[in-house]
Amino acid sequence: MNLKSIGEFGLIAAIKEQFAALNHEGVRGIGDDCAVIPLSATKSLVITTDMLVESKHFLLDKISPYELGYKSLAVNISDVAAMGAKPYVSLLSLALSDDISQEWTAKFSEGYHDISKQYGIALIGGDTTAAPTGGVAISVTAIGVIDNDKIKYRSGASVGDIVAVTAPLGASSMALKLILEGGEPPKKLLQAHYMPEPMIYQGEWLSKEVGVTAMMDISDGVASDIRHISTLSGCGIEIDIKAVPICEEVDAICKARGWNPESFALSGGEEYSLLITVNSDTFEDIKYRYMNHFGCGLYPIGRCVEGNSISYINATGDINDGFTHF
Amino acid sequence: MNLKSIGEFGLIAAIKEQFAALNHEGVRGIGDDCAVIPLSATKSLVITTDMLVESKHFLLDKISPYELGYKSLAVNISDVAAMGAKPYVSLLSLALSDDISQEWTAKFSEGYHDISKQYGIALIGGDTTAAPTGGVAISVTAIGVIDNDKIKYRSGASVGDIVAVTAPLGASSMALKLILEGGEPPKKLLQAHYMPEPMIYQGEWLSKEVGVTAMMDISDGVASDIRHISTLSGCGIEIDIKAVPICEEVDAICKARGWNPESFALSGGEEYSLLITVNSDTFEDIKYRYMNHFGCGLYPIGRCVEGNSISYINATGDINDGFTHF
Repeated sequence: MNLKSIGEFGLIAAIKEQFAALNHEGVRGIGDDCAVIPLSATKSLVITTDMLVESKHFLLDKISPYELGYKSLAVNISDVAAMGAKPYVSLLSLALSDDISQEWTAKFSEGYHDISKQYGIALIGGDTTAAPTGGVAISVTAIGVIDNDKIKYRSGASVGDIVAVTAPLGASSMALKLILEGGEPPKKLLQAHYMPEPMIYQGEWLSKEVGVTAMMDISDGVASDIRHISTLSGCGIEIDIKAVPICEEVDAICKARGWNPESFALSGGEEYSLLITVNSDTFEDIKYRYMNHFGCGLYPIGRCVEGNSISYINATGDINDGFTHF
Repeated sequence: MNLKSIGEFGLIAAIKEQFAALNHEGVRGIGDDCAVIPLSATKSLVITTDMLVESKHFLLDKISPYELGYKSLAVNISDVAAMGAKPYVSLLSLALSDDISQEWTAKFSEGYHDISKQYGIALIGGDTTAAPTGGVAISVTAIGVIDNDKIKYRSGASVGDIVAVTAPLGASSMALKLILEGGEPPKKLLQAHYMPEPMIYQGEWLSKEVGVTAMMDISDGVASDIRHISTLSGCGIEIDIKAVPICEEVDAICKARGWNPESFALSGGEEYSLLITVNSDTFEDIKYRYMNHFGCGLYPIGRCVEGNSISYINATGDINDGFTHF
């Protein structure tokens, strides 16, 4: 059997089971956006790691080194934000093929530095190596800190909770489609794909709200990611397709080319906005205060229901559950 | 300018300088075997990450997946041991080329699991991805815990301190040389290269000794690694070649083939024993108690001296300063 047939989540599930007996008490391991290591009665560290590999996650002739450096940390601290934590330190490892120049590396570092500075994150370690047989590979580990009572897991949703997202969707996957076609995506879409803005402040703000019951970032696409909340919270999810906010530019391109915008909004990965569930009694109040604070909305897209399946109402086309890493 | 000419340490130095202003107070970043994050007035976490890349760090047709899984964690927790800390949790990321089977991955996980179990280390996260353009890449992050007053840095050596190693040297690099020649190294050497035993208990034991002033693991070779202690401690180092302990099998092979054993012992990387400096007044006492506890010795190989250069006495051939990652 090869890895494609077992899939990424199959492999992770097998590893999780194999290592379960080694867990330390109080430490939350595999299964959420970050692992959680308790520091004290009141504080924890959250920790995540992501690998970006040439030709799978990026094309060297498309993304600039500055953007790639920026994005490498952005996608990791997005996981920190998804727990509600404040990013604190990171480690960066680079495997570089022979044709990478020092200028490329300097620009990469500059991008990584600028987002580190923006969010006050120290770079405390890493590794550099040649990659004789392959392309560039980037591995980042990011660590955040958070009060124990504010951590948001994927497992906290209950039947009746409202499912919401923190931004209109589809920009990143539309950009990717146009790039792969050899086209020139509008600047806003390119930015969403190459320099996604992780929702650090939004995640921290939402972590303080008891009414927010589950939170994760949208890295594989809503249709794929919502399954994790469903499985870990033990509830079904009903998504109202008509309620899903679609990025304006994506909608316009879809109209012009006869594409289905829902597919970009729900199946497209690398969004890095937040997917949350909120107690329905508190939703309007939280949404109102969130709008006052950030000047933009929370977008309800569905509801937690009895059962364990994901269903779509008002769909006009097929929804597939996002991309897989194999 | 390309990366080969600036080199790994040049690249790390440039990054360290660029990010210096972002450091958090109390956090020790780039420059030691691990970064140090204070947890409380008495405890810290130490954290390290290492990347292993096909054709640079291993050959898939030579090392078994079990050994590779074992070694991937071993080389990381060796850095944890080098700070004197107890390894606690790890994260594992895998980029896998298409020809990797599920059986290979299962054996890899088994090796990684067995060393995790041996030292009580939980696997708390990671990432898996396909590697379309290249070979297998493995990135591990390891975290340990330690009492603040027991952390051993590379910077603590003083003029007059004795320089010592915790094991005879040369086995791993001799194994590599024979493997690359297509030969069959003796089992003990193969084991040293493919399943190195990190000195976890030895590192913890040595961390409790105030007389041990600096400690690091020997990953790039003594001749290269000792430079870090020299630079960070602000002293010169004099190594007595005749005192350097050489693995018996390495010595025998060198005699038979007319090779210089000193070159394997001092320039050979991937040793994963410990390189320490010890206050000369306490050395004999520590050595005696170490021998009683572990049944093997500490091997004095030189002395910290005035100045900033590394010198060798009684050398019969050239010593080069180990391997570089570019």
